[in-house]
Amino acid sequence: MLKGNVIVGQSGGPTSVINSSLVGVFKASKDNGAGTVYGMLHGIEGLLKRQYVDLSEHIRSELEVELLKRTPSSFLGSCRFKLPEPDENTQIYEQLFNILTELDIKHFFYIGGNDSMDTIKKLSYYGKETGRDITFIGVPKTIDNDLAITDHTPGYGSAAKYIASVMKEIIRDSKIYDLDSVTIVEIMGRNAGWLTAASALSKGEDCVGPDLIYLPEIPFDYNEFISKIERKKKERKSVVIAVSEGIRTKDGLYVCENDKPGYGDSFGHNILGGTALKLADFVGSELGVKARGIELSTLQRCASHIVSRTDITEAYMAGADAVKLAMKGESGKMIIFDRISNDPYLISTAGYDVNMIANKEKLVPKEWIIDDGTYISNDFAVYAAPLIIGELPPFMVEGLPRHLYIDDAAIKS
Amino acid sequence: MLKGNVIVGQSGGPTSVINSSLVGVFKASKDNGAGTVYGMLHGIEGLLKRQYVDLSEHIRSELEVELLKRTPSSFLGSCRFKLPEPDENTQIYEQLFNILTELDIKHFFYIGGNDSMDTIKKLSYYGKETGRDITFIGVPKTIDNDLAITDHTPGYGSAAKYIASVMKEIIRDSKIYDLDSVTIVEIMGRNAGWLTAASALSKGEDCVGPDLIYLPEIPFDYNEFISKIERKKKERKSVVIAVSEGIRTKDGLYVCENDKPGYGDSFGHNILGGTALKLADFVGSELGVKARGIELSTLQRCASHIVSRTDITEAYMAGADAVKLAMKGESGKMIIFDRISNDPYLISTAGYDVNMIANKEKLVPKEWIIDDGTYISNDFAVYAAPLIIGELPPFMVEGLPRHLYIDDAAIKS
Repeated sequence: MLKGNVIVGQSGGPTSVINSSLVGVFKASKDNGAGTVYGMLHGIEGLLKRQYVDLSEHIRSELEVELLKRTPSSFLGSCRFKLPEPDENTQIYEQLFNILTELDIKHFFYIGGNDSMDTIKKLSYYGKETGRDITFIGVPKTIDNDLAITDHTPGYGSAAKYIASVMKEIIRDSKIYDLDSVTIVEIMGRNAGWLTAASALSKGEDCVGPDLIYLPEIPFDYNEFISKIERKKKERKSVVIAVSEGIRTKDGLYVCENDKPGYGDSFGHNILGGTALKLADFVGSELGVKARGIELSTLQRCASHIVSRTDITEAYMAGADAVKLAMKGESGKMIIFDRISNDPYLISTAGYDVNMIANKEKLVPKEWIIDDGTYISNDFAVYAAPLIIGELPPFMVEGLPRHLYIDDAAIKS
Repeated sequence: MLKGNVIVGQSGGPTSVINSSLVGVFKASKDNGAGTVYGMLHGIEGLLKRQYVDLSEHIRSELEVELLKRTPSSFLGSCRFKLPEPDENTQIYEQLFNILTELDIKHFFYIGGNDSMDTIKKLSYYGKETGRDITFIGVPKTIDNDLAITDHTPGYGSAAKYIASVMKEIIRDSKIYDLDSVTIVEIMGRNAGWLTAASALSKGEDCVGPDLIYLPEIPFDYNEFISKIERKKKERKSVVIAVSEGIRTKDGLYVCENDKPGYGDSFGHNILGGTALKLADFVGSELGVKARGIELSTLQRCASHIVSRTDITEAYMAGADAVKLAMKGESGKMIIFDRISNDPYLISTAGYDVNMIANKEKLVPKEWIIDDGTYISNDFAVYAAPLIIGELPPFMVEGLPRHLYIDDAAIKS
């Protein structure tokens, strides 16, 4: 059984299934004897301002449990807050631990990516050093799928399913006219190409898939890009290309920052994006064909109207198993997925030392990137295909997906 | 009963439900004794090159009928081909009518928007003038909802449902950080704001909806835009704005072409787009806040993974009722929808003279555009809400929506 109270937070970019992990933590905590289960608002940054809620007041029924699983983006809000090194600034740690002590928190859960695992790492270190009786467990979450050690991350499967689904739709759309055209689809992923690679899953009996795929793992070359398109155009009139927002030229400059094809430099300094539009512009002027850029943008990380049931179930499991880890007194660990087999697809979870995960990035293996860096091998499809299986349709109310939300007026802070 | 053979084509931009109209024409023709039902490939442009298929060879079972209803974009391909005036160039008409006569076509159906109705208008005129025994009927289709006379157009309801759904997701995504931000979402519609107005349908119990909505019907003013945002920012930190791709300043210049906020002029000459990115850039530099542009792009016209059942049913009905009209010997008409009542929502169809529809545009009524041109009234919601009701989920195969396609190798041309 759990001791005392529990607190859980969400951090970093949202996903379609991050709330399923939240539900997993909430339900498993309640089922295992936790007192109050608090949710910190806007992660650790909000907690420092004493912004939190009693989750029981906001998840009030089994219906709301199911609704929250189907609600995209971070129910509790999020932050991008990096704690200082524990040896450099103890004040902020004392402040945090005082709040945790006041609330009689014995178990702390943080749902997030590699930056968020840095928070778990530092808090568990500081807690241990100062003899605090609180466990700190990380629950993995990122559409980017770039966390070390774990087979994959909750959030990735749904983003991959969304990307492959809309890629099929875009490819169909692009082929209706009997005209030469180039369509460039920009997909998230600053350094890791997992999401862009997922565009290849669209390839199948009823779809040719993208013609070219450019991942950030491989330096981008404008001239080779044009020659590859010219070659593809001999096969078919309408060429569709998937590019990562994070592709860079050999000199390390992001394509979206590069002034080569034309845009003013007031764009793209803080947020990546615009890569597809810039490349479409470049292709249009180089080849004189109709070229269109499509940026999937934030839609790919919050499209809960088409989630992977596998992903949403695993996200729940990651949250619930984090609670079980805490019950054993473990701390400073993150839940990871181990793949037992591909067919049938089976995984197990385990706790793993966050020190080996925090601040690290797992890239797409170079040996999976083929055709001079313009496509992804079948090994990737074997790996990713099970992650997009199954559906969990939204609750549709008056024609639209219904979401659970926190009524601002009801928040005590 | 129908006489002889039938031919059907698709023209203009695709929608999520245009193939449901195709199925309606195909099934009703077969059910009413048509001989061969031909599909022209790439519309009238392909027909001139004798590109057509026998639809029975490509829609071979009830399963494929259902699959085609759920397949986005134009199954038969499309074109943007304007016939010359019948009095100016009879050669092309003779060429077309010779092909129709060879194929023993007695009934011609064309699924499209106002440009496509121009084709119906000219062909029926020429056919009548030259004493041909062929009926020409138009089946309405456009996500833009800008056809005259009809209450609404097939394609609009599904696009509106998609826009309202992703608007809810984008709004949730935009609010997770406790930070000032402005998100600008660009929606299709060059002259008519129906699609952009649909963003307001996201407003409800669980969503505040967009804060500001800019339609192309009202001239856009950069300074007023900034003051409106400043006012909204006093209410909430995260402001979300829906803009039409077609918004223009008082001098008639498209915002996406305007060089005011910064982009090079190599962009946007042929395809509208980039409005959101330009405005985000402008807002970011004027107000010093994080500003993001999101362009829904072609996703909004081919997102068959989230269609309106009302829309897809009506699209089918428009196709089937076009056949019934032809059976009565009518020609030069388009199927229109008349709304009988809102609650319960009931419509009927009728045939209407294409001369009153072709080349005309129906804009959003000025009296529905409120708050100095920055929002849409409840009259719009009353009008549009029934059109997005109900779902028709895709057939999911290995985690992805399955589509019906024409095997290129099987095409006789």
